[in-house]
Amino acid sequence: MSKLWGGRFDKPTDTLLERFNASIGFDWRLYAADIAGSIAYARALERVGILTTDEAMAIVDGLQAVKAEFDAGTFTILPSDEDIHTAVERRLGERIGAPAGKLHTGRSRNDQVATDVRLYLLGQIPVLRDHVRGLQRALVDKAEAHLGVLMPGYTHLQPAQPILFSHWLMSFFWMLQRDVERLDDLTRRVAVLPLGSAALAGNPFGIDRDALAAELGFARLSENSLDAVSDRDCIAELLFWAALLQTHLSRLAEDLILYATAEFGFVELDDAYSTGSSIMPQKKNPDSLELARGKTGRVVGNLVALLTTLKGLPSSYDKDLQEDKEPLFDTLDTLELELPIVAGVIRTLRIHPERMAAALRDDLLATELADYLVRQGVPFRQGHHIVGQAVRLAGERGCGLRDLTVDDYRSLSPYFGDDVHGVLDFRRAIEQRSVPGGTATAAVKAQIEAAKALLGE
Amino acid sequence: MSKLWGGRFDKPTDTLLERFNASIGFDWRLYAADIAGSIAYARALERVGILTTDEAMAIVDGLQAVKAEFDAGTFTILPSDEDIHTAVERRLGERIGAPAGKLHTGRSRNDQVATDVRLYLLGQIPVLRDHVRGLQRALVDKAEAHLGVLMPGYTHLQPAQPILFSHWLMSFFWMLQRDVERLDDLTRRVAVLPLGSAALAGNPFGIDRDALAAELGFARLSENSLDAVSDRDCIAELLFWAALLQTHLSRLAEDLILYATAEFGFVELDDAYSTGSSIMPQKKNPDSLELARGKTGRVVGNLVALLTTLKGLPSSYDKDLQEDKEPLFDTLDTLELELPIVAGVIRTLRIHPERMAAALRDDLLATELADYLVRQGVPFRQGHHIVGQAVRLAGERGCGLRDLTVDDYRSLSPYFGDDVHGVLDFRRAIEQRSVPGGTATAAVKAQIEAAKALLGE
Amino acid sequence: MSKLWGGRFDKPTDTLLERFNASIGFDWRLYAADIAGSIAYARALERVGILTTDEAMAIVDGLQAVKAEFDAGTFTILPSDEDIHTAVERRLGERIGAPAGKLHTGRSRNDQVATDVRLYLLGQIPVLRDHVRGLQRALVDKAEAHLGVLMPGYTHLQPAQPILFSHWLMSFFWMLQRDVERLDDLTRRVAVLPLGSAALAGNPFGIDRDALAAELGFARLSENSLDAVSDRDCIAELLFWAALLQTHLSRLAEDLILYATAEFGFVELDDAYSTGSSIMPQKKNPDSLELARGKTGRVVGNLVALLTTLKGLPSSYDKDLQEDKEPLFDTLDTLELELPIVAGVIRTLRIHPERMAAALRDDLLATELADYLVRQGVPFRQGHHIVGQAVRLAGERGCGLRDLTVDDYRSLSPYFGDDVHGVLDFRRAIEQRSVPGGTATAAVKAQIEAAKALLGE
Amino acid sequence: MSKLWGGRFDKPTDTLLERFNASIGFDWRLYAADIAGSIAYARALERVGILTTDEAMAIVDGLQAVKAEFDAGTFTILPSDEDIHTAVERRLGERIGAPAGKLHTGRSRNDQVATDVRLYLLGQIPVLRDHVRGLQRALVDKAEAHLGVLMPGYTHLQPAQPILFSHWLMSFFWMLQRDVERLDDLTRRVAVLPLGSAALAGNPFGIDRDALAAELGFARLSENSLDAVSDRDCIAELLFWAALLQTHLSRLAEDLILYATAEFGFVELDDAYSTGSSIMPQKKNPDSLELARGKTGRVVGNLVALLTTLKGLPSSYDKDLQEDKEPLFDTLDTLELELPIVAGVIRTLRIHPERMAAALRDDLLATELADYLVRQGVPFRQGHHIVGQAVRLAGERGCGLRDLTVDDYRSLSPYFGDDVHGVLDFRRAIEQRSVPGGTATAAVKAQIEAAKALLGE
Repeated sequence: MSKLWGGRFDKPTDTLLERFNASIGFDWRLYAADIAGSIAYARALERVGILTTDEAMAIVDGLQAVKAEFDAGTFTILPSDEDIHTAVERRLGERIGAPAGKLHTGRSRNDQVATDVRLYLLGQIPVLRDHVRGLQRALVDKAEAHLGVLMPGYTHLQPAQPILFSHWLMSFFWMLQRDVERLDDLTRRVAVLPLGSAALAGNPFGIDRDALAAELGFARLSENSLDAVSDRDCIAELLFWAALLQTHLSRLAEDLILYATAEFGFVELDDAYSTGSSIMPQKKNPDSLELARGKTGRVVGNLVALLTTLKGLPSSYDKDLQEDKEPLFDTLDTLELELPIVAGVIRTLRIHPERMAAALRDDLLATELADYLVRQGVPFRQGHHIVGQAVRLAGERGCGLRDLTVDDYRSLSPYFGDDVHGVLDFRRAIEQRSVPGGTATAAVKAQIEAAKALLGE
Repeated sequence: MSKLWGGRFDKPTDTLLERFNASIGFDWRLYAADIAGSIAYARALERVGILTTDEAMAIVDGLQAVKAEFDAGTFTILPSDEDIHTAVERRLGERIGAPAGKLHTGRSRNDQVATDVRLYLLGQIPVLRDHVRGLQRALVDKAEAHLGVLMPGYTHLQPAQPILFSHWLMSFFWMLQRDVERLDDLTRRVAVLPLGSAALAGNPFGIDRDALAAELGFARLSENSLDAVSDRDCIAELLFWAALLQTHLSRLAEDLILYATAEFGFVELDDAYSTGSSIMPQKKNPDSLELARGKTGRVVGNLVALLTTLKGLPSSYDKDLQEDKEPLFDTLDTLELELPIVAGVIRTLRIHPERMAAALRDDLLATELADYLVRQGVPFRQGHHIVGQAVRLAGERGCGLRDLTVDDYRSLSPYFGDDVHGVLDFRRAIEQRSVPGGTATAAVKAQIEAAKALLGE
Repeated sequence: MSKLWGGRFDKPTDTLLERFNASIGFDWRLYAADIAGSIAYARALERVGILTTDEAMAIVDGLQAVKAEFDAGTFTILPSDEDIHTAVERRLGERIGAPAGKLHTGRSRNDQVATDVRLYLLGQIPVLRDHVRGLQRALVDKAEAHLGVLMPGYTHLQPAQPILFSHWLMSFFWMLQRDVERLDDLTRRVAVLPLGSAALAGNPFGIDRDALAAELGFARLSENSLDAVSDRDCIAELLFWAALLQTHLSRLAEDLILYATAEFGFVELDDAYSTGSSIMPQKKNPDSLELARGKTGRVVGNLVALLTTLKGLPSSYDKDLQEDKEPLFDTLDTLELELPIVAGVIRTLRIHPERMAAALRDDLLATELADYLVRQGVPFRQGHHIVGQAVRLAGERGCGLRDLTVDDYRSLSPYFGDDVHGVLDFRRAIEQRSVPGGTATAAVKAQIEAAKALLGE
Repeated sequence: MSKLWGGRFDKPTDTLLERFNASIGFDWRLYAADIAGSIAYARALERVGILTTDEAMAIVDGLQAVKAEFDAGTFTILPSDEDIHTAVERRLGERIGAPAGKLHTGRSRNDQVATDVRLYLLGQIPVLRDHVRGLQRALVDKAEAHLGVLMPGYTHLQPAQPILFSHWLMSFFWMLQRDVERLDDLTRRVAVLPLGSAALAGNPFGIDRDALAAELGFARLSENSLDAVSDRDCIAELLFWAALLQTHLSRLAEDLILYATAEFGFVELDDAYSTGSSIMPQKKNPDSLELARGKTGRVVGNLVALLTTLKGLPSSYDKDLQEDKEPLFDTLDTLELELPIVAGVIRTLRIHPERMAAALRDDLLATELADYLVRQGVPFRQGHHIVGQAVRLAGERGCGLRDLTVDDYRSLSPYFGDDVHGVLDFRRAIEQRSVPGGTATAAVKAQIEAAKALLGE
């Protein structure tokens, strides 16, 4: 009898249902968390006298031996091992005999799996956080290394105003910084211990839940057992966190894929982060970034999957909740591979400042002219309109704004003075924008310093 | 040199990117489709003189041998096998040498993988269709076997009017019938051959695409090569098809989970489709149905994943499109396991007609009273209001509508006659609803006959 | 008493719930469908003797007068009008008195609203279809007008092979053609009449459903009343249809936004489809296309909304189903505005063939060299590798493939002959790809002819 | 010239595009935020000398007058008012003339709208929070009032163990408490000021951003202007927050809809939160709760809409971002109506303790028997199996566990003593579960006290 239940059943489970029902195919990876939780629980049972000291010791030793088998890759999962809890308990029984049957006293797989997933997440979150930090570091290093490089800034993908390339890089640093903040916030909600909730109504043996929390590294206890066994909020939060992070990565990828086109030519990916074509010998494709962009779908889909599953469920535990783990694991796997790759792309990115400079068209200085007029006392709205006419005039002449003469400008407004060409300078336009968060060199340096302080933590 | 590209590259691919980029972990299951496509392509190359007859024969024989290795489970995937196409071509080369290098002439992995997935789907769709048909058959058989059983029909989950249990069963047959129709419709759009589109611009060797389509069982050719290499519409359609089917299964599951509660008690699941609890010895849980309901999340998530990935992609092939396969395969795997299980649940379901009968409260006959008044010439709106007062009166007395006397009814409306209790009969209420699609026995029998005709096809 | 129910209730509805519950704010637009359905239903009631001829005539005339009020914009919706059905019936009562109360005999708002939405959709689908056809026509006209224009074809957004600009345009025609096919398929499932299903169990007055279907223009009857009152499949199908169409529009928009950048410069949007900036006088932004791309989110969200609402609902009618209409209406409104705008963008698009020509780099001819070697008997795999080295050589020299000498080529492979430069020709490369669906002029012309035949229908 | 741009344009905007592009139909509700932001900005312009004191005063007075028009409902939106910013500036110009044209100096609609939405959200969040608090209060009050009521606790919707009804109520309190925590967390990320970022590159007039933040009630400044104008993270967070809250509400609704069925009969909704049927006079439907459940779809759809729109966008401002507001407003409107309704449902809910008591079947005590054996030293696994056999035995006899004799129990295990029936007591079973979070009365009281402390804040 390998199942943890069945005394009241007349017939065996349908074999297809056994496969449909089984979670061992994906929840095996909770083994270390499951065993850590069981060790703590054995000690708690000892403290309330359900286990003798010898029994507790046998169980703890046995569990450690089972963990060693998993670590070494020698643990054999049997077809009858419905889930990781069953597998561990079955193997424990094989190793230590009767006392193994006492471990599940007052505990249900409902509070057990809820605890396992949270423990597992508490282990994974620092890994994720380090990966985000690694990408942030790559961005800051690059921003610091290329502080002198100018490029066109775009809105609507149309050239708008000149900016520092480092300003563009840093814009992604701050998106990721919000991701770090959000991750830290949600971690507080992961670190809540469900163990002691039993199936739904609470542990009946007066187990010391505070001691369990302390031993397992949880900061708080769940407050209601019914809620605790079916609370998947922190998984949903993690999935949303990942989905929003992915939109950031997708935007970074989109920009770089554009900037790496032949037509833009601002950057070039290292060979290590590119692939070729099976038919076109000249191709060098930014597959790394396309996948980073494309995987946004997968991660958003994982979030939708869990929310849809949760919608309208009767409260307390329902089997539907087993569907929480695959989207979570897939999301973690995706990010843990993707983030270092994107960091590698940034670290090894080749920059072509001359192509960026070539893309700085006179048009990007139109706002400077309007601002010039403002300083002469012309209302901005009127100045905007006058400069619109200058842009048209240059367009008709097929020349740039810098090529129009002072007389040309005067013909549009008497407020233009002899010094008008002085404002038609890309570097000057950049340095004007020195407010906090602006693209002026000093302001970008301030961003970099603030970022380094955050990374130094 | 194991990659299908690389002549222009200076540096090796980053090892993380190799893992991120590789699709062999999931696209190996396209092997039979890939090899079938390559065999047809080799013959097409022979017809245009790119391959000699000997070369073509060597390739075809070699590919068949490679397929035999896959079939037998002896094919060894190497770490350098980026995808199934690379793996097959690498192995072909090992087996037949030089001519293997000619197979890829004028073909790209872009048109190759698009062809593979469609061939694979054309093989899977009949399997899915049979599974849906199997569930429909289980519903019809059950409906035919229990035609005499009455139950409360609900709206808003409140008792509404009496219906036949078979009418309830058949309501799901028709949902599934729409799913079959939709599947047949989308199959026409799967059976469109992309092969011959090459990377994006079309095959340059005048390959005979019509012959390829005929050999591979496609009904039409793709009309534009740029579109063909990035068209994932039929996968999106299949995923939507599955998502809508899942909502049907989730509603069937929801009803049965409710009807199997202790409080309703209308049905009982067979042990083979139930599971127990690790802590509560009495439990018999409808896990099979809860999983069927819960997996709706996964399948809707898969649809969202693909749509999100497709959104805003530059046209023609982008690497993002590689993300189409995992949601598809996961969806197919889910349904191919789930549908037979749900059919098994229906086939083995135990019915408790006495519990259903006990749930037929007098309230369910209120509409009969209103209809009675209509037949006496009272406008329905007025009749509805009068009967509302009868319901209140019975409520205040703590009795049923059948317990009110003729005088009670007359006190509410003079149109009530001595025969009023004649309409307060559940069976009569059911048999009144004899329009096509109604719950009367004859109408339900007609549904069953129509259904059997469809299943007989 | 303005509600259609309430006889059994002691207390009035909470005023917040009245607002939460009311659908008149959005379902008023069903008025014409609702009235058409009621007129047909009145005639059906007359045929079974529930209404006298005079009553039926009064009702029909009254309903037509109510419709005239709506058409003229003079109908006043009262706060107590819960939904369009209540509003129409209330007003009918005001106009014709007592007989109005007979119209709802044997009909429920459940089958009524299901009928209304389908009638409404049957009216909207041809409008949508015409709009898609309009965009297809704009694409074909443009493709025909610019058949001589060459441009780079991309994969991974990297230059791949030369193509005709018309080939690019036509690739979107075929995406939209699949959308038309899908729309035609789903229309068959919209044209199924639910009327006669009453609340859930079927009409009890032997109403002639076939006559109703014929009068209202439905092709089939719903087969099961329980299913009919809660079947929202055809709405889900329409929403998916729209979501997939939107991914096509988003890809078209993405391409054009890129091609309209200063860096690509292939196309320019007409002023009529561009907007400016409140701060940067030079800006001309492709807002029309950005919105078309961005609105994909809204439409995918509408699909997810309905699927999530449907998931796990008890069968038969639940109030949750009222949530079907706003996503549907929003989707229709979005597309009916967006499609003509995108068609206008295409019709008025200015083309810059010289910028496209300038973007045709020698690299795009690398496949031609490999194909040349194939024709000399070199296996493609080997040819691909040799040309990769040619690309590197040209890269090192900072020159193009056309600038390498025959000796250069010979140094890489003895199979290169004196005629090698003959294949390094963009026009030739295009014309080689003459298979059906290829980019050769004749093949694109064939596409255009096929497209015109489809548009001619 | 009513547009804020257009100097360089030759042709008017297409009229359809004007409608497609315009946001005034929904962003008018930002008017108070927009005007507050403009007043602060005028003062900031004065401080840097762009405006004279007189000009600034005229602008501030004018803006306050425009706000008064909006407040009074007398502001007339013109067809040419593209968005709320344009409408306000247009009207300001009509009221105060020339100085109005200076207000937009150094500011773009990009940083303006980003500021407006955040200001608006900072005003709405306390409203949302109060509504959640209101529902929490209703739950706690109800839990306190009915502390003596027992009910079956369910897992898999099958009877599991007896619990206090108040424990069930409180389980939802804690879900909502997490929602409050999350809302507080995200508010910190809303309170970040984008103003001063201009179009993308930062304000060029040295505006004092810290003073702006202080005046408008923001806690932090955005750190990078490029990021600031396209950062929609806090909206996505709010939408996710709402989606997760909705899953909680949907589960509460699902439970109550079930408990209000005729078959469960545990609770009854007040007439004020129920509606009737247009055809079935007896019906009393829980529409309020069904809508609360159903609207989960809408809110999840709104989240998906925004994430899909954000996916793959080029960085900095794109017009696609205009699609952020409708999902946000719709979500706020939904919750602000729904939360008080659900609170009303709870406050007015009638409880039927006798129906709950009747549903306490002996089976619910099976775990007590297993725990009894544990206390006799039987390993839980073995005890579980023995009790499974007792359940079968009772099932075969058609009796309850309390009806089996001591001898019956002894026949299954010698560890059963004469005192076995003592544990077969529902109240005792409940009181055993006295760990923190358990269902014992003292533990539930502790929950209630903790909850009241949180509500007292």
